[in-house]
Order: sequence, then structure tokens, then C-alpha cells
Amino acid sequence: MVVADAVHALRGALDPPGVLLPPQDLSKYEISPNNMKGRAAAVIRPRTVEDVRQVLRICREHRVRLVPQGANSGLVGSGLPDPDGTQAVLSTERMRDWFDLDTGGRTLTASAGWTLDEINARLAPARLRLPIEVGSSPSVGGMVSTNTAGSNVLRHGDVRRRLLGVQAVTADDDLTVIDTLAPLRKRNEGLDVTQLFVGTEGRYGVVTAASFELAALPQAVATAWLAVPDPERLPAVLREFEHRAGEWLTSFELVSASAVRLLEANHADLLPRVPPGDGDKVLVEIGSADDSADRILQAAIETLADRGDVADAVIGPPDRLWEIRHTIPLITERMDPVTSFDISAPRSALTAMRGELTSRLARLWPEITPVELGHYGDGGLHLILPLPAAVAAAPETVAAIRRLVFDTVVHDFGGSFSAEHGIGPKNADAYARYVPAPVRHLADVLARHFDPRDILGWRTP
Amino acid sequence: MVVADAVHALRGALDPPGVLLPPQDLSKYEISPNNMKGRAAAVIRPRTVEDVRQVLRICREHRVRLVPQGANSGLVGSGLPDPDGTQAVLSTERMRDWFDLDTGGRTLTASAGWTLDEINARLAPARLRLPIEVGSSPSVGGMVSTNTAGSNVLRHGDVRRRLLGVQAVTADDDLTVIDTLAPLRKRNEGLDVTQLFVGTEGRYGVVTAASFELAALPQAVATAWLAVPDPERLPAVLREFEHRAGEWLTSFELVSASAVRLLEANHADLLPRVPPGDGDKVLVEIGSADDSADRILQAAIETLADRGDVADAVIGPPDRLWEIRHTIPLITERMDPVTSFDISAPRSALTAMRGELTSRLARLWPEITPVELGHYGDGGLHLILPLPAAVAAAPETVAAIRRLVFDTVVHDFGGSFSAEHGIGPKNADAYARYVPAPVRHLADVLARHFDPRDILGWRTP
Repeated sequence: MVVADAVHALRGALDPPGVLLPPQDLSKYEISPNNMKGRAAAVIRPRTVEDVRQVLRICREHRVRLVPQGANSGLVGSGLPDPDGTQAVLSTERMRDWFDLDTGGRTLTASAGWTLDEINARLAPARLRLPIEVGSSPSVGGMVSTNTAGSNVLRHGDVRRRLLGVQAVTADDDLTVIDTLAPLRKRNEGLDVTQLFVGTEGRYGVVTAASFELAALPQAVATAWLAVPDPERLPAVLREFEHRAGEWLTSFELVSASAVRLLEANHADLLPRVPPGDGDKVLVEIGSADDSADRILQAAIETLADRGDVADAVIGPPDRLWEIRHTIPLITERMDPVTSFDISAPRSALTAMRGELTSRLARLWPEITPVELGHYGDGGLHLILPLPAAVAAAPETVAAIRRLVFDTVVHDFGGSFSAEHGIGPKNADAYARYVPAPVRHLADVLARHFDPRDILGWRTP
Repeated sequence: MVVADAVHALRGALDPPGVLLPPQDLSKYEISPNNMKGRAAAVIRPRTVEDVRQVLRICREHRVRLVPQGANSGLVGSGLPDPDGTQAVLSTERMRDWFDLDTGGRTLTASAGWTLDEINARLAPARLRLPIEVGSSPSVGGMVSTNTAGSNVLRHGDVRRRLLGVQAVTADDDLTVIDTLAPLRKRNEGLDVTQLFVGTEGRYGVVTAASFELAALPQAVATAWLAVPDPERLPAVLREFEHRAGEWLTSFELVSASAVRLLEANHADLLPRVPPGDGDKVLVEIGSADDSADRILQAAIETLADRGDVADAVIGPPDRLWEIRHTIPLITERMDPVTSFDISAPRSALTAMRGELTSRLARLWPEITPVELGHYGDGGLHLILPLPAAVAAAPETVAAIRRLVFDTVVHDFGGSFSAEHGIGPKNADAYARYVPAPVRHLADVLARHFDPRDILGWRTP
């Protein structure tokens, strides 16, 4: 058996913890936080770049397919092996050789296995931060490969914008190591090969390290939940905060009343941290280099309350207020049956798009109550549709719902079918439908260039 | 003659001002601001995307090579035809159909021909800005194709970081129009084809439009020139400003005393705007969303003066102080004979790299006085070496100087041979020497993909 031969060779190349096999419990590598499932023929855990080259060499030789995986925190299955068990997982979790912090330069170069939470714990004493804000703790390799974004893109951008360089091992005949690692803010040398490894989900190579521009921790942070009586008023609320805080506005997050209600069942203790009422709620955060965050926040809320743009507000400690925002996805990720979307629009069209989606869905499936979690400041929207049993049992109905949502987003509002989670098996159909053929063709040309034997990346079943 | 046939066809396809030919004076398209020279077989000026497709179709058919050009403000010759007159210029200056400003979204989609100055004049009433700060006025197409950076990368990033989407016409068999134009801050759909047209100098296609994220104009701006008595103190000065202003710190620009002295001959009236003394000078600018810019600036200067990190300062109106920074390059670009470099380092290594370069050059060519203009905050450095006549007359000596500088930057400090100006004929040698073979090979693979008949882009003579 080919995999058995490969396993033998891999065991020769790596230390014993480097190759994990069934019947050992591999579920950590097989099940995503939102319960997507794959089956791993093996889990390969290299520690060094040379290890990765050996693994790719052996897998090329034995035609064993590999899916690179970081902290397995993704939500579209792009780091999972297929459910048929034909793929091995290449986990970069043990790659931790480098952690080169340059405090004066405000940069970090780190190996693929370091996770976001580990990194930020290590940077805190230097009053620095890798400013990616998501409810999970992805790894360096995963963040680059999936272009992690999250809740402070408005201020700090996505991973692509923070990235200064990358190291990746490709599966070409020479097992070429592409290495643009360097803490350089300016480097304009023609084609920027770094970009090809961002968001391409390991298809072109295994990301083994990355260089990032860091942000300073703010001197003061002020946070509030706001009740906005009418979605039409959201643009004015955002405008007021951007006007007063400029780039010190870190987040402007939207949750629908239906999303807040999800807390009632098991997290009722959190509810007093959000103002009551049936309208949208916004989590706003300002982080200032001086001590003015609170003053700016309060002045903005006062103005907005006077105008009637904000009906009520709860100002409080950031951790306690963010707990609301981070708890809701933990609930929605476990909802079943459900169909969920990670979409975006030009932010000035977000209110109109929400309205259109809600009314189109209500017309056809009035029994569905949409739950919305939006990164309003950057135009992102997580739309979760809990499905009645009858709908969930009819795959063609679910497909029709997905089609309706995607067509509305892409065709009617010029938005994206994948704002931040990526493609993976979950969005493979949408990718084929909405990404123009020449772009998909080019993506394939690059795949053949970097991986002529076609061993890397997720597969649809 | 092939070109004559092509000209005939082009004249049939475009309006009369669309095809300019010698003996008409074409020097506007042939000579760069720093006096690099090419010779244009013709200048083709399409107005629409369909025009561009026609031009590429005709030039493919007749094997006429084209170099795309924007406002001809580049400094490495990447928009110039070769000196032998074998290429036509494809100027995008007349492409001005779109100017779609979304004030609520803070985004702009504009055709290739709009220039930076025009754009910012139009955005000012909305209190918005495309925050690229260079001493010239490049066009949309040129800014994307050369990834324009400049003096406020520290705050706003280069064009790549501001770019949300692009439209480009490729020279493949289908004359494919790649179009990712959209004012979307979040779109994570696998390979981001947009990136391939950034900084690749028109080699993969003619950029015909772009979407940008804009910045709000600051409420208050405070600017100062500082005298820093010792280069070793520069990191502490930068740290103090970053600490106090965070992302409101717009610029931190370095000029050497030798650079300031260039003003003495013809711009002595400007000199009182810079503090006197023989050390480095720094131009610092803070732009605040509230009225605190001046207060932050003054407090920082006070602290730094107390510590001895700053010896003297001139606080003044931004325009008057920036005039110094923008006048010096106008002088150095016209210096002759000269050899100049646009290099970068990790910013925490910039002081060491400057010292090493200066001492290595002084050891071998003591008669050369380096002139330095640095984007200190982002690690960029423009190094200008006025050449004694004897050195200028010996090409192998000039080559040795260039080699010494580049080797020091790239090999000893992990820096870049092209911080922001790009490749072009000027840096073609350095590209071949310092960019790894697999990356150059990939760049060629992409060129063959987008332009199988090899008609687009600059040529070395």
C-alpha cells in the first residue's frame, strides 16, 4: 500500500511524535470548530524547514496528498483532510524555531507554529501586539494561508496588510523554499511573490514562517455597546466615530437583536452588558496613544444621543464587553441545522444589503430568523440562518437559499461570497460560480507551477 | 514596415489625438524627471478599456512592443521606451471615464489617467485624501504599476496597502480584462489576482482603473524640523513620537546635513526653515482627528530636548516645512554626474547601515560626499553620490560603487536594492543579481501567461 510505504519513509525522516496514525485519536486535526469533519490517513508534524522538504519529497514520491494545517481554527474546511481519508494532514504546530522580535522596528519574524494568543502574550511586555482580533487563536502559518481578518480590520487591516515577508516550501521538483522573510516596510522589487501564499490555503506551498509589522498597544482603551434604533442610522454613527477618532477607532462591530437573544438560553448573565431593545447593537472601541480614548468615546456618544442616532449605551471594561461579541459565534458555530455565510459589501451598501437579504428570505422562508454578526466598519457580515427541520432535510432547498443569498450579495450589491473565511470545501461551489474563469485558470496554472504532482491542498469529497 | 502597418491600423481604431508620431515632439513621453531617456516609435493614447484592447490586438498582430506609461514621473525608466526607438509608448493619460467617490465608504474607483494631485484636489471638499505623499503627481495606473510609496508609508502604507481592486487589460490571446474593481475592504476568495498588477510595471497588463481605500483629512496637522545631534539618537526620537502619537504620526523623514547644504546655492531663502547645525535633520508630522496635533508635537519635542535627543527644532506651517523636503530631490534628480540609490533596511538597522555605507565609501572614494534623504520611519533611504569627473568617466568604477552599496545593503543588512522606485532598466542588473532565480523564473512564467507574444513592458537597450 502506497500510504504504508510513505509512512515507513516518513517515520525514518522524522522523530516519533512527527508521525501520528489511526487508530490513535486524531480528531483534533479532523474536526473544525464549526463541526466540519474530515478523516486523516496520518498526521505529519515536521519541526523544521528541512523536515518539511523531506515530507514533501516523500509524499511526492509516493503520491500521498497532504493538506497543510495550522491551529485548525478555520471555518471553511481548508485545513481539513477529505472525509474519505485519502489525505494526510501536514500540521505545522511543532514549527517554533524562530521568534525574532525587533521592538525598535516594531516587527516580528516567527515560525509557522506560534499561535496568535502565544504571540500576543509574549509581545505584551514590550507594549506591542500582532493586531489580529478573532475569537480563536490561529497559528502564523494558518493566518498567512487563510489571510485572517476579523474585528479590527478597520484600523489594522487583514494579515495581508500586516505581512512583510513569508517563507514557504513548495512541492515543485526542487522543493524550492521561497523566502522573503525580512522586517522590511519598503521593498519594491517587481513581482511580490509573498502575496501568492496569502489566502491560497496551502495550495502553493507550506508556509513555514512569516514576518509581520506589529502595532503598539494603545495607552488607553474605551469600549461601549450602543443601541442604534434604526439600521438607517448606522452610517451616521460610524461617521461620527471615524471623524472623532480617526485611525484610533479600532472596531465598529454590529450584532442584530436576534444574535443578542441567543445569549438568553445559556448566557443570560451577559445580557446586562448590552443595552436593551429590539434594534441593532454596535460594539465600538477606541484605542488611543494618549489617555483620551474615554473622552473621545463619551463625546461621540453624547452627540449621537442628542441626534437620536444612539438610543442607549453601556460603557464598560473592554474584556467584559468583548465577551458578548466572542460568545455569540461560539453559539452559532454549534447550531445545527444551520446554513451560514461570511459575506461582505461596500460598507456604504451594507444596510441596504441586509434589508434586501432579510426581505427576500422572509418572502420565501418566513420561518427562518436570520442572525447577523457584522464587521460593520469594514463591510463584513456573518449571516447565520437556523434551519427548520423540513428545510434542512431538503438539500435542494438549502442550495436555493445559498444561491439566493450569494446572488444577492455578488450580483446586486457587488459584494463577496467570502469576506474573510476563505474557500475550502465549504465555498468551493461559490468559488466556481462567482470567480471569473480566467482567474480560476490562473490559479490552476500557479498550482501546476508550484506543485506539478498535485499533492497539496484541500479536496472536495 | 511593420510599425507603419500597425500605425495605420491604430489610426483606424483611435481618434486622431490617439496616435502621436515623430517628428512631433514626444519628449514629454521620452524623458524622465531624473533625465533618463528613451525614444518612442509612437505614442498611443487610448481613452477606454475597449480602446486598450484594440491597441493590444493590433500590436500583437504586428508584433509592436509597447511600454505602458502613466504620468511619466518614475525614476527607474520602467515607463520609458528603449533608447533604440523599437517600442511605442501606451500612455493612459486620456483614460478618465470613471471617478466614483463613495464618501460614506471612504473609497474611490478611478480610471488610470487621473493623477494624484487631481484626485486629492477633488477629494478635499469631502475631507478625504488618497494618502500617497510623493514629490510628484503620478497617475492611478502608474501608482498601481509601480506601487508608489513615499513619505507617509509609516501611517498609510504604500499603494498596495490602499488598493482594493484593479482593472487591467492583458495581452493574452483573448485580450482578457482582469477586473477586481470594487470598494470592498473584505474579500478573501483565494488567489488575489489584484496583487499581480502591483509593482510589476505593466509587464502583465495595462492597468486601466483601480479602487482605493481613502483616508480622512486630519483635523489638525503639526509639523517640525528637528536637529538630531547624533544618528544614534534617531531611534529614541522616533520611539517618542510613535509612543505619543500612535497612528497619528504621519511622517518621520530624514535628511543629512549634506542634503540640506544643497539648498545653499539656489534656495538659500529656505534655509531658515531648518534648524542649523552639522547633524541629521528630521521632518516630523502629526495629523490628529481632534485638535491635539500641536500639543502632542510640542510635548514630544520638550521631552526629547530635555534628554538631549533633539538639539533644536523649527515648528512651522506644514507646506513651508515640506517645501524643503520636496525641493532637495528636485536638485538631486538633476545632478550630473551622479549615481543614486533607493534602498531600504529594517528600520532599526538603518543607522548602522548608513554608518557602514559611509565608511566603506569614504575608504575607497574619499572625494565622494554622500547625500542622504531617508524615509527613516519606514527604513527607506535615498542615497545620492555626486561623482567626481574622473570616477564618472570610468564605468567600471561606477559599477564597483554600485556593487559595494548593493552588496552592503542586501547581504550585510538584509535590506532591499529597490525600496520604492521599482526595477526598470535602471535596476535590471540588481534584479538579476539579488532576486532569487526561482522568483525571477516565476515572474517569467506569469509574463508568458499574460503576454505570450511578449509585447508589453520596458526593455533594456
